[in-house]
Amino acid sequence: MTNGDAGPHERSYRKGPERRAQILLSAMELFAERGVGASLRAIGEAIGVSHAALRYYFANRDELLVEVYRTHEARVHKAQAHEGSAGSEVSAVAMMENSAERNRSIPGLVELYATLTTDALQEQQHPATREFVQARYRRVRADLAERVRAGQRSGAIAADVDPDDAAALVVAASDGLQLQWLLDPDAVDVRRSLEVLERLLPGAR
Amino acid sequence: MTNGDAGPHERSYRKGPERRAQILLSAMELFAERGVGASLRAIGEAIGVSHAALRYYFANRDELLVEVYRTHEARVHKAQAHEGSAGSEVSAVAMMENSAERNRSIPGLVELYATLTTDALQEQQHPATREFVQARYRRVRADLAERVRAGQRSGAIAADVDPDDAAALVVAASDGLQLQWLLDPDAVDVRRSLEVLERLLPGAR
Repeated sequence: MTNGDAGPHERSYRKGPERRAQILLSAMELFAERGVGASLRAIGEAIGVSHAALRYYFANRDELLVEVYRTHEARVHKAQAHEGSAGSEVSAVAMMENSAERNRSIPGLVELYATLTTDALQEQQHPATREFVQARYRRVRADLAERVRAGQRSGAIAADVDPDDAAALVVAASDGLQLQWLLDPDAVDVRRSLEVLERLLPGAR
Repeated sequence: MTNGDAGPHERSYRKGPERRAQILLSAMELFAERGVGASLRAIGEAIGVSHAALRYYFANRDELLVEVYRTHEARVHKAQAHEGSAGSEVSAVAMMENSAERNRSIPGLVELYATLTTDALQEQQHPATREFVQARYRRVRADLAERVRAGQRSGAIAADVDPDDAAALVVAASDGLQLQWLLDPDAVDVRRSLEVLERLLPGAR
């Protein structure tokens, strides 16, 4: 808690996180418009932040990319909590449908996500990205596996489906479909394809 | 057709494709060992081919990457034709299971594939990669949709499943699961997860 009379030290302490959040927002807009390809220096130029300032907040391009994605996820979680749209009765597939629907409206986001995932495969060049992506997948799979278990308890999903196998399948389907849709929007419909999967893995009854 | 007395012109004509094939093989081995991250120049250094020679055969890094992947696919198709393992009675999911199984034994391949797909999203920077990846997805989806139709004709798959939606789903599941497996081999089993999907989309009876 701070009061209105915060001294200069406190003000600069408060300014840091705000400036950082502002940079993340500008970077997110840049990625949405022009893609993720640029270097940290080019990102700085495009969003009007000096390379030194950018480096003050983010050690390197990987860290900026991860933080932009993390910011997006935090917003989504906040919106879900507000809408009450993440209850355990929502099926694993419906969760991914909703997430894909949100990503659709943020053009650079699927590209950012694909870049993070591909970078993560290169352990030596991108160790922090790998750690973030691994942890994210584990978290998402654990959440979806819980939804599959809820479906099984209610009798909607066959008891002999392994919840962890099914969870990995649902995340994979959602990731892969969003990629195919970006490459060929007229040929691929993410929601319709996920609805095929939902026949097998419906929500709790 | 050439005879043993081929003149120097003919010999150099024959040498070109062989040398190119040799370079592709070396690049494939390099990617398997050390990943796909390197520049065209670094690739040349690692496989002992001058940058000029590399540029003679491949216009840029994208073209080399695409050609390495194309070479891999051509081999797979040849092996399938030889084994007779791609008949229309093989389910869409089983096709992807077999393909994932083969990719497992070539460590750099999933990374190469992920790199091509992510590059393809950046239309302006990687137009040729995008064209290759789009065409490949269309071809694979068309093949899998045909298998889904065969399953429907035999009564094994529900008639109201859209074959194109199902085909996109199966490719997506296979792509995404291979990525997750590479990032977390102990947590993700591609075959087991695809078997969950095969309940919904079995082969023709």
